[in-house]
Amino acid sequence: MPTIKDKAAIVGIGVTDFSKDSKRTQIHLACECILAAIKEAGLKVEDIDGMVKHTGDGADECRILRSIGGRNLNYYGECRYGTGGSSSLVLRAVMGVAAGVANNVVVYWTANDSSKRVELTYHVGMYMLSTSEAEQLSFYPPVGLITPEGQIGLIIRRYMHEFGVKDNQFGWVPVVCRENAAKNPAAIFYKQPITIDDYLKSDMIVDPIRALDCHTKIDGGMAMVVTTAERAKSLKQKPVYIMAAAQSAVQGVEMMTSYNRPVISGLPETSNVGKELFRVAGVTPKDINVAQIDDSYAPLVPMQLEELGFCKRGEGPAFCDKGSNIRLGGKLPLNTSGGSLGEGYLYNMNHIVEAVRQMRGTAVNQVKNAELALVSGGAGGPASGLILRR
Amino acid sequence: MPTIKDKAAIVGIGVTDFSKDSKRTQIHLACECILAAIKEAGLKVEDIDGMVKHTGDGADECRILRSIGGRNLNYYGECRYGTGGSSSLVLRAVMGVAAGVANNVVVYWTANDSSKRVELTYHVGMYMLSTSEAEQLSFYPPVGLITPEGQIGLIIRRYMHEFGVKDNQFGWVPVVCRENAAKNPAAIFYKQPITIDDYLKSDMIVDPIRALDCHTKIDGGMAMVVTTAERAKSLKQKPVYIMAAAQSAVQGVEMMTSYNRPVISGLPETSNVGKELFRVAGVTPKDINVAQIDDSYAPLVPMQLEELGFCKRGEGPAFCDKGSNIRLGGKLPLNTSGGSLGEGYLYNMNHIVEAVRQMRGTAVNQVKNAELALVSGGAGGPASGLILRR
Repeated sequence: MPTIKDKAAIVGIGVTDFSKDSKRTQIHLACECILAAIKEAGLKVEDIDGMVKHTGDGADECRILRSIGGRNLNYYGECRYGTGGSSSLVLRAVMGVAAGVANNVVVYWTANDSSKRVELTYHVGMYMLSTSEAEQLSFYPPVGLITPEGQIGLIIRRYMHEFGVKDNQFGWVPVVCRENAAKNPAAIFYKQPITIDDYLKSDMIVDPIRALDCHTKIDGGMAMVVTTAERAKSLKQKPVYIMAAAQSAVQGVEMMTSYNRPVISGLPETSNVGKELFRVAGVTPKDINVAQIDDSYAPLVPMQLEELGFCKRGEGPAFCDKGSNIRLGGKLPLNTSGGSLGEGYLYNMNHIVEAVRQMRGTAVNQVKNAELALVSGGAGGPASGLILRR
Repeated sequence: MPTIKDKAAIVGIGVTDFSKDSKRTQIHLACECILAAIKEAGLKVEDIDGMVKHTGDGADECRILRSIGGRNLNYYGECRYGTGGSSSLVLRAVMGVAAGVANNVVVYWTANDSSKRVELTYHVGMYMLSTSEAEQLSFYPPVGLITPEGQIGLIIRRYMHEFGVKDNQFGWVPVVCRENAAKNPAAIFYKQPITIDDYLKSDMIVDPIRALDCHTKIDGGMAMVVTTAERAKSLKQKPVYIMAAAQSAVQGVEMMTSYNRPVISGLPETSNVGKELFRVAGVTPKDINVAQIDDSYAPLVPMQLEELGFCKRGEGPAFCDKGSNIRLGGKLPLNTSGGSLGEGYLYNMNHIVEAVRQMRGTAVNQVKNAELALVSGGAGGPASGLILRR
């Protein structure tokens, strides 16, 4: 059985600032972070022969190619599913270089989610919506699920019901994420930590989701260069090897509203991703030194920790309690750049970039001697993840 | 250098009828052809752990999974670029099974392009449009390029100018495609051949594109199952091996309007795809016994034949003249099921399925002892292609 284990490495990262208004187009953001990643890797624009993007990212590879003056692409394509898709993009890059289809693949993600600066306001027909999206946007709003918070709220509420979780138990994730962000100059919430009291006093958006449970929309872009493990050795940066990458969609899955399956209190896709990651990498949760976990909504973090095997089902909130396990110096420091709750929401792409920094030993909130990092993305829909090693 | 050569095989194909009105949803079409392909391969629904689709196909893998009762997917994703993207989907499937990420990957494509039966009429914001698409839809219409025919027409006109091609020289491609379709009961133009006079009398849609140069929109769906070459041996059908698969986007590329490069009369992406296909497969154009060439617009066929190395630049129209080279029994029989001009327009997916049938020896218009088939897709934008062997 072939495997992707250690076949590829991340050799360059590039980031723009995170802000509430980038004052530039997504294409501009994309070119900026991609050129930075290429330069950081010690490569030239002409070396790039692959690009992988998120379906929803308006900055497309053809337009970028024209803007950065690149040569030819032998490999390109996309994946859906927001935070649940970011590691899928890396999986694609790994496969591209491992198969010999491309040599140096750029993975990127841009958003002007805060300023809503998109090049043109255009309306397209239904054909661009998938059937699942159309259903999600049509059948759930009439019963009141008009926002993602409402959609994910039902799953969180059921989880609380089944495991006797109280609504004051989710607060330590945002507290720790903001603690990390407060020390990260690149974070949108730099120097703005919160206390558990702030959390408990924050507005209830859709019960049980509070304002401080929710990610913060930003403008920004991030890019990475992936190449073969062999080629990585001769490049400028210390390579960060991709031990494993996996994605999963399970029977009954929708986007964030997978209500039509026997158990709706879990994240079965994340469970599958975890099993596959640990199988391919040949390590266990105990070996992971730092984790970057999808915190688009804070309660998803303890749920993912359970599904990934860091603790037992229902014990996630206790694992995160008081933050001692999950903050810097704890058993499993997580979201060390601040994550979606503190650094900003770039669909988990910043989680991957932060995992790379941790493996390089260059993170602002560096976990000492960290050798293995795990990334997990997925908010009740299709999920994906990575295990990186230094 | 790793390679995808002969790593994977197509082991099942499934098709719906092609019609002007399917009277069913795209999800229905997708489930129908996918289940047929799985059954034909001698597999069960539970064996499928990967699905690859076109970005624009409204039938998404999550919804299909719920409808066909499949188990879990470890691999899914999508590609853009219409006819230029269909072989890209197969490339993805090959990489998935070659990397050990999935075992049995379904590639599918559905369309209700004729009846316009889409589940819901919905409007979404710009975020689903790429920058290139937005530009294409914004800057070209004001100068009169309001249809794909107009957009591709400029490229064809320049090609004619540079190589002294007369407007009566493109007619033999539609004649041969309709000749093949006339004998194919599954074709939308079954029993409806045309003559070169019909072609010359057909309406000029956008000079130099005539009505009979244009593909015919249909409702229908097609699916394939791709697995490893090793596993293919024990399955029900005679495996069709994927010797090579490639895709390409070149500097200056847009969708169908790549006007902003030094030479606009060629299809440089197709040239790159051809080089990569022949390099990976280790064969030459002379070894190809049958070809399925993107005929979304007839003049693109001679252009692709040139770029792929079947004849010299500017000699494509002469190669196709009178049809003797390209019809059954000729030097290079092409579009043996009728292609987009005769069988119906499913974005070149039917070209791939027909190439499989030719390699199995089961085509309606079978090329005797055919051992190698080439598929080429791309209409002035990103392109892709395959070399299959029996």
